[in-house]
Amino acid sequence: MTNRQVRLAARPTGLPDASTWEYVDAEIPSAGPGEFVVKVEYLSLDPAMRGWLNDVKSYVPPVKLGSVMRAHGVGRITESQHPDYQVGDIVAGSFGASEYGVSDGTDVTRVDESIAPLPTWLGALGFPGVTAYFGLLDVGKLKDGDTVVVSGAAGAVGSLVGQIAKLHGCKVIGIAGGPEKCAWLTEDLGFDVAIDYKNESVYKALKSNAPDGIDVYFDNVGGEILDAALSRLRLGARVVICGAIAGYNATEPQPGPAHYLSLLVNRATMAGFVVFDYLDRYAEAQEQIGKWIKSGELTAREHVVDGGIDAFGDSLNLLFAGANTGKLVLKVS
Amino acid sequence: MTNRQVRLAARPTGLPDASTWEYVDAEIPSAGPGEFVVKVEYLSLDPAMRGWLNDVKSYVPPVKLGSVMRAHGVGRITESQHPDYQVGDIVAGSFGASEYGVSDGTDVTRVDESIAPLPTWLGALGFPGVTAYFGLLDVGKLKDGDTVVVSGAAGAVGSLVGQIAKLHGCKVIGIAGGPEKCAWLTEDLGFDVAIDYKNESVYKALKSNAPDGIDVYFDNVGGEILDAALSRLRLGARVVICGAIAGYNATEPQPGPAHYLSLLVNRATMAGFVVFDYLDRYAEAQEQIGKWIKSGELTAREHVVDGGIDAFGDSLNLLFAGANTGKLVLKVS
Repeated sequence: MTNRQVRLAARPTGLPDASTWEYVDAEIPSAGPGEFVVKVEYLSLDPAMRGWLNDVKSYVPPVKLGSVMRAHGVGRITESQHPDYQVGDIVAGSFGASEYGVSDGTDVTRVDESIAPLPTWLGALGFPGVTAYFGLLDVGKLKDGDTVVVSGAAGAVGSLVGQIAKLHGCKVIGIAGGPEKCAWLTEDLGFDVAIDYKNESVYKALKSNAPDGIDVYFDNVGGEILDAALSRLRLGARVVICGAIAGYNATEPQPGPAHYLSLLVNRATMAGFVVFDYLDRYAEAQEQIGKWIKSGELTAREHVVDGGIDAFGDSLNLLFAGANTGKLVLKVS
Repeated sequence: MTNRQVRLAARPTGLPDASTWEYVDAEIPSAGPGEFVVKVEYLSLDPAMRGWLNDVKSYVPPVKLGSVMRAHGVGRITESQHPDYQVGDIVAGSFGASEYGVSDGTDVTRVDESIAPLPTWLGALGFPGVTAYFGLLDVGKLKDGDTVVVSGAAGAVGSLVGQIAKLHGCKVIGIAGGPEKCAWLTEDLGFDVAIDYKNESVYKALKSNAPDGIDVYFDNVGGEILDAALSRLRLGARVVICGAIAGYNATEPQPGPAHYLSLLVNRATMAGFVVFDYLDRYAEAQEQIGKWIKSGELTAREHVVDGGIDAFGDSLNLLFAGANTGKLVLKVS
């Protein structure tokens, strides 16, 4: 029995490829005093992971060359020397891109399968859910009746942002790539409008569908879509900068949002945030989202790749190809 | 006796020139019921005027072709049918780029020469003062001890922003063009540091002079200087977008701030505002600034062009050449 791991072999330029990762058979870790060992069942694949590969100062240190890739996962405890965790407990946490991880319980969440199956605890009941919840309500200062636009709308965070806005009586416009994703947004999730950026002008579609302008724009993509949204803000609008996946693999400097002066004209605010700042309120969001899932008011969808840990690199790149609908998760065991 | 006026003859592409303006001898207006006539002594020349010439939707309607240029001025009442204003009263208001203006008192401020001479009522005691005051304290959420950076620091608003920040116990770094302006900032106004963007790298100078980053960046210029400041933000920074003079006369689309994702990494906020939103609190700022001027804690400086109304167009362009230090004012009569 071994513990297969994904290690960072080389920092990528542009899109990660086979040379980025090294797959290694390590020993299964054992738990020291106050620790437990988790057999990881699902790994979370997140756009933010791309940023962690760059050797730049950011909100978390870069992953070191040769070390196990940083990753959130959910799994079962197989050994414990921690007083609060027993063998068999299901937990979510940052155990690394590895078949087994060891933890002292820091920032670990207990998983309750009666609320939702394991992959959901990496999506709506995990960081993407908390990100959507606080990003929209707290950073975005959502008000009932707002016109809300979200990009990356069929992704892990975007799909929840739109649904939470609908639950607050807002008009919701999602921007996504391709007719299937757009149909999912409007037909299954109840978005009022879906804009297919691959097949129509986002600027024109925003103009016709939000003629009075945008109150909250929740941005996951950056680039031209951010700029189009900026040019259609309403007085007092709030722009939430959650991510910028359109530029994460760029090999040349990316242009900034040329229409940022719309912030001045419209007395608007553009604010960035990082979900880790909300760790102390994690349970609050999780509890509310759990209720919405149980009541059927909120749909949690995961795109599960059943590929085992060796599929880590290829699966991660599905994000940058826009191939996932809902939260992208890798089934490890 | 005539009333010489500046009318908008043609919408400029790029820098306004002689073809932009038409100088016309009109009749001196008379006051209707509830109105008064003002003989304008000084006109305010503001970067924002450039935006009012463009035929685009903004926070105020564009100046119409053929009509008198919108302008703030200060002068003496020569005729009155208004119960609250008497002949001889000195007032400031939006009387137009004209030797005489007529008003019903809306948004008119009384001028008290015992506090400061007339031109100051277009600067520190006028809109630039109110802009600096609320932009820094309210939009910028200034805290004692913050590291504050202001661009256009030797201009009407910037010179006040830096001084108000100093009065709040902040470290203040001003960015201006040329050694004379920079010397004025540090030697006369008490700025801690002045960065001469024409002769040094703003990015490097910010890095060495604000090694822990910027808490408040008050932007009057946009362009590369905004981008440099964004890349040096501190956690929780506030970026105040007051203007973008670097791009006002551009004939091609200007790039946006490429480093806007610093807002995310640093959980920072970029907010635009328009001083007109603070009209109901105008007196509050004016009173406080008046006290600081009287006590000698704040220096109000105007750059007065003694050219008469026919010098309007050439004088306005001094702003875009960066030729003024302090508030640019045109002496009309």
